[in-house]
Amino acid sequence: MSDSAVQELPGRPIGVAVLGMGNVGTEVVRILIENADDIRARVGAPVELRGVAVRDTARERPGIHPALLTGDAEALVARDDVDLVVELVGGIEPPRTLIRAALEAGKSVITANKALMAAYSGELSEAAARNRVDLYFEAAVAGAIPVIRPLTQSLAGDSVNRVAGIVNGTTNYILSEMAETGADYADVLAEAGRLGYAEADPTADVEGYDAAAKAAILASIAFHSRVTADDVYREGITAITADDLEAAKKFDCTVKLLAICERLNDGGAERISARVYPALIPLEHPLAAVNGAFNAVVVESENAGRLMFYGQGAGGAPTAAAVMGDLVMAARNRVYSGRGPLESTYASLPIAPIDDVPTRYYVSMRVADRPGVLAQISGAFAERGVSISAMRQEGAGEDARLIIVTHRASDRAQSETVAGLEEMDSVIEVSSVLRLEGTDD
Amino acid sequence: MSDSAVQELPGRPIGVAVLGMGNVGTEVVRILIENADDIRARVGAPVELRGVAVRDTARERPGIHPALLTGDAEALVARDDVDLVVELVGGIEPPRTLIRAALEAGKSVITANKALMAAYSGELSEAAARNRVDLYFEAAVAGAIPVIRPLTQSLAGDSVNRVAGIVNGTTNYILSEMAETGADYADVLAEAGRLGYAEADPTADVEGYDAAAKAAILASIAFHSRVTADDVYREGITAITADDLEAAKKFDCTVKLLAICERLNDGGAERISARVYPALIPLEHPLAAVNGAFNAVVVESENAGRLMFYGQGAGGAPTAAAVMGDLVMAARNRVYSGRGPLESTYASLPIAPIDDVPTRYYVSMRVADRPGVLAQISGAFAERGVSISAMRQEGAGEDARLIIVTHRASDRAQSETVAGLEEMDSVIEVSSVLRLEGTDD
Repeated sequence: MSDSAVQELPGRPIGVAVLGMGNVGTEVVRILIENADDIRARVGAPVELRGVAVRDTARERPGIHPALLTGDAEALVARDDVDLVVELVGGIEPPRTLIRAALEAGKSVITANKALMAAYSGELSEAAARNRVDLYFEAAVAGAIPVIRPLTQSLAGDSVNRVAGIVNGTTNYILSEMAETGADYADVLAEAGRLGYAEADPTADVEGYDAAAKAAILASIAFHSRVTADDVYREGITAITADDLEAAKKFDCTVKLLAICERLNDGGAERISARVYPALIPLEHPLAAVNGAFNAVVVESENAGRLMFYGQGAGGAPTAAAVMGDLVMAARNRVYSGRGPLESTYASLPIAPIDDVPTRYYVSMRVADRPGVLAQISGAFAERGVSISAMRQEGAGEDARLIIVTHRASDRAQSETVAGLEEMDSVIEVSSVLRLEGTDD
Repeated sequence: MSDSAVQELPGRPIGVAVLGMGNVGTEVVRILIENADDIRARVGAPVELRGVAVRDTARERPGIHPALLTGDAEALVARDDVDLVVELVGGIEPPRTLIRAALEAGKSVITANKALMAAYSGELSEAAARNRVDLYFEAAVAGAIPVIRPLTQSLAGDSVNRVAGIVNGTTNYILSEMAETGADYADVLAEAGRLGYAEADPTADVEGYDAAAKAAILASIAFHSRVTADDVYREGITAITADDLEAAKKFDCTVKLLAICERLNDGGAERISARVYPALIPLEHPLAAVNGAFNAVVVESENAGRLMFYGQGAGGAPTAAAVMGDLVMAARNRVYSGRGPLESTYASLPIAPIDDVPTRYYVSMRVADRPGVLAQISGAFAERGVSISAMRQEGAGEDARLIIVTHRASDRAQSETVAGLEEMDSVIEVSSVLRLEGTDD
């Protein structure tokens, strides 16, 4: 009897192990139990929860029978009646070891772990391929919003040129509030902490590490190349001031923390860029209207053109919805002996350093209020081949301020220009430097 | 040797037959040839074009070798070296017979044919299931925008409550232009024809038949129930006037042709509604900003919350991108002996008639300008249990006009109220009746 005939016997239950019972895990367990009938109909077999690995088995957890809790994740993963492992622990270890063990034992894995996938998707995908099982991670990027599946499947016949997204809810909440209220970064961050939108240690969010992990995952799948979080150029939002948001408005822009994955066509061999930084975007850009804790991802591809995906990027139930979609598909693949696409790195495009990426700059500086200053400053841009798109002068005397927006040039030329400005006598202080994205020129 | 072992031999080429070489077919053929290397890497085997069935084989078609053209679609589908059939002919016959023949011969099928899928998805899915092959139709709804795959796969573990979309580019172009320019329907339709946005016979678009077919497909997959185009309540946009768009603005609304698929929770057994009509929607609703030939679909589901998918809903290359995504996945399934989900109708939810659906109405009427008229008219609403949310009186004397927006009530109560108004002496004419969607109350 062939392998596929065995697996297609209808009705054999699919056993699920859930690792971790935080916000997302709790919701996954709830949905698995509440929607059991629907899931059975969609999978073609019952999907049964075998156990949940938690750190503290003594803690009472409503909605789950205590006998299902275990402190031994390793043993749970190894059980013969476990077919699918849902990893919701987070961090690199123990998830990396547990997922490897599951895959090597022929179990499919669903994970929401962006840090792990951004660092070790290579070895994990190889293990999944070798063992002919699924490794799904829709929930690792943009919460409930389907992004991974559209990129890997719906656009499988197209060529993606660019993915740009707001993929971190905490920073988007902070920047939206700053734009709306005019408040300072520190005050809004404190408020976000009180409201539960920011963690006690907000570093991963506000310094852009979370977004960088997601950018690495998006770039990998969009460009069929291996990109890790270390490959992603990264700046956070901690230096953004109320003044920046105010100034952005004057240029009909707002400030968003963007994750950008781009195919560069700079004449020579094809390269890609993956980067995360706060940027000015025009108010009419579709991402400008994405406020609060919402996420959105804009994909530009050769034939499909521009697509946008919008929804809730975090939270227990939304993230659990993404996990459950993966879980049902992986369970269905067990029943019908299929497999989803795994990491595809055949293109192996090299990653361009940020210096080589064409960008536009917004530079705000305090300048000396005397004749010739403007000519001197414009000269500093021209010298490095950076042309100026817009200039705004504000205040006078001690408060004289100059804001310059440039046309596209290599980021090296732009940043060297800024370094040059900082050396100039007529420039008292370069108070703010941001990039400008989402424009056609 | 098992079946799956045979199919997994790497490298066996996958043969493709394309039926129809209009805008979309031409682009599919171009992409198949231009992107052959990428497609081979993504599928795990070369994908080779075996032939293209066209009505007129004599016509010169740049970009394709004449030997690949054939007038005999049936013979092309039957060829032993054809594994996948891409149907881009449109209409019910001959596609229905050709697709059935392909499926029965064990070939997977990709189609962009919304009319066919909205009428015969049942028999075609059954044939695909029986023969263990794929039947994909992402391109049938909303062109390039991934909607079918997110609904059937990404949300496979969730419960969809509502799908509302702008899924017809022609009518959206017309309504957007009317809103922007204040021009009349007939003038904008003529202009749309000149620009190629409307067909010589625009009936299928402007009367809502195209949107109704898409609504049927969306409702089927969202609610795991069989819904055909005949089940969809339908009104077109031919009666929309410049006055309606002007009045909509006064209520901070615009008018869009919406396809709405909804789960009704009206106390008793669960039912669903699928309907297409022009409706007022608030300007702040995400669909209000979708203009021109663009499409967008908003999905509201139990755990994922509100998601929006936005992009190009028509055109050769965008629609071809959706076809190619399906094609690569179907080809990949050949290589890895997997299968995607087919029609799922286990829920078999009954369809509620429009009379039972809770709706809100916008009613514009010319009324007699005399005391007591307002009381009489409000009475007509109250009598049928319809409460009024907003009222606006304009003009005087012969031109006295009254606009009423109601709260939610059964569509029967709303439409009976309108019928009652038409009988009243004080109502000279009910000039316009539209529904209001996208509000919470």
